[in-house]
Amino acid sequence: MVRKYAVIGTGALGGYYGACLQKSGCEVHFLLRSDFDQVAAEGLKIESINGDFTLPEVHAHASTATMPAVDGIIIALKTTQNHQLPALLQPLLGTASASASPTAVITLQNGLDVEVAMAEWLGNRPLLGGLCSICSNKVGPGHIRHLEYGAIRLGEYAGSQPAAGVSELLKQVAYDFQQAGIPIEITSDLRRARWRKLVWNIPFNGLSVVLNATTDAMVGDPDVLALVRELMAETIAAGNGDMARLSPHSYRPLSTELIETMVDHTRRMAPYRTSMKIDHDEGRPLEIEAILKNPIQSAQAAGVEVPKIEMLYRQLRFLDQR
Amino acid sequence: MVRKYAVIGTGALGGYYGACLQKSGCEVHFLLRSDFDQVAAEGLKIESINGDFTLPEVHAHASTATMPAVDGIIIALKTTQNHQLPALLQPLLGTASASASPTAVITLQNGLDVEVAMAEWLGNRPLLGGLCSICSNKVGPGHIRHLEYGAIRLGEYAGSQPAAGVSELLKQVAYDFQQAGIPIEITSDLRRARWRKLVWNIPFNGLSVVLNATTDAMVGDPDVLALVRELMAETIAAGNGDMARLSPHSYRPLSTELIETMVDHTRRMAPYRTSMKIDHDEGRPLEIEAILKNPIQSAQAAGVEVPKIEMLYRQLRFLDQR
Repeated sequence: MVRKYAVIGTGALGGYYGACLQKSGCEVHFLLRSDFDQVAAEGLKIESINGDFTLPEVHAHASTATMPAVDGIIIALKTTQNHQLPALLQPLLGTASASASPTAVITLQNGLDVEVAMAEWLGNRPLLGGLCSICSNKVGPGHIRHLEYGAIRLGEYAGSQPAAGVSELLKQVAYDFQQAGIPIEITSDLRRARWRKLVWNIPFNGLSVVLNATTDAMVGDPDVLALVRELMAETIAAGNGDMARLSPHSYRPLSTELIETMVDHTRRMAPYRTSMKIDHDEGRPLEIEAILKNPIQSAQAAGVEVPKIEMLYRQLRFLDQR
Repeated sequence: MVRKYAVIGTGALGGYYGACLQKSGCEVHFLLRSDFDQVAAEGLKIESINGDFTLPEVHAHASTATMPAVDGIIIALKTTQNHQLPALLQPLLGTASASASPTAVITLQNGLDVEVAMAEWLGNRPLLGGLCSICSNKVGPGHIRHLEYGAIRLGEYAGSQPAAGVSELLKQVAYDFQQAGIPIEITSDLRRARWRKLVWNIPFNGLSVVLNATTDAMVGDPDVLALVRELMAETIAAGNGDMARLSPHSYRPLSTELIETMVDHTRRMAPYRTSMKIDHDEGRPLEIEAILKNPIQSAQAAGVEVPKIEMLYRQLRFLDQR
């Protein structure tokens, strides 16, 4: 049976992954706002390091009300838009899926605790999270440029427990993505994967806005690089404290070796304007709640001091308000 | 006998105070660079909250080599120019003063340990420091606008001892300034006065550059205000640790009450672009060594942690290099 997906937010991320799924044979329904007319008429155009392709015909929707029941709902909005999700997802969750298995919600958003509010209104529907390592940009209406990487670390949300293990549903979604050429690493511990991603996102997303800098300028400057390492160390300490608090007997701590691994990795990356910097440059609200505020609160609950992350948060809040 | 002063750096600060001294009857010699032709021809023009005045004729010098021996050398350059001072002051220190008493050097520069290098090449000549509370700007060649305040907290440099007491020379210089209408508060502990000033300068100068903000925007935002208070608390802890280390039995700690005093004071100030912000906007090097690096080193020597000041320093170093 053909698997069906809905993509909520057809931007650099949702547009790319949704197009890959459609190309591999899935039925994909795209939610669009400003690009609706263009995409309804002309489809999607993908330039990718893995090969360019166009999808002349896609299921374009201006509202989720016109979408059918699906097997998976891929959330690729900014977390700053998450207050819209209950209304957006209502039509999709109201009817049973064609496959009669419950609809899975798959959020591809960064940050910590982005699932808490979703889980409340989703009830016992399955909720997955994916951490995407990808450099892609929307360069025009329905036109996406995929520049580098593309893998997703995928896990299941476990509520206040850090690790949910690996369910059949998680394997099914991973299979669909892998069939679409998207490298998937399954994790049994989504919360740990979120902290791991934050070790990169907190310093580089945050400082890119405060210092008006691309990744190469940051790792190329000795002072910023020292600060990046210090912010990474605080994030690792916070994550380990948080995991130890939630699951004292079974957590797997993040190693401080991650710092040099990520620094080396960033040095080898092409110069990159972070997603938070792009949001700031284009006047969109910053994802500082998911990426900074929630981690700070978890650090505080675990009794871990994160003075530099706090300072970065306050600076970003100010710049965000302006 | 008419007292003679040299002003090294005829900008917003040196131009204003030097003009006040000349107006009160002192003989004042001004060192000028880009404004030399204008000031040699037309003198100085002062707009001040205490009353506007012009000095149609002043002793303008393009080099210290043309200056006579003086009683006091007022240093009103940026600390980033201090490497020029030995060469600049050589002609002034080479000959005996008309009054036969030793020439006093009076540095009106902010920050910590700005006197260390000066003291080395001054030998046993007296060295005073003044912390100026003044809002003034140079608005054109030889044209200074004094907007608010104007008092100087004046003390004698004591080497590695924090407090030098109050010498006759310090009283004489204070008298000359007071005769010129400049409010003077004499301090027996210059190092403490420097730390006190840093409690304001570190947060407001530093954050004004990083956040591209004036004082009113900073105290008007809850996040920046919280960060200002945290930076002030770190500065007070660092200053007290430093003073306790240098003079364990006789130091007078700074009170944390200073935080709310300074916040209230800044709230009542007219919106102000800090001197470091003006330097940054005009492409001049930032005084981050005197205002951040030296205090951080003193904090480290005293075993006081200042993570947020360190972060601010690293951010400013990056912005300064660009």
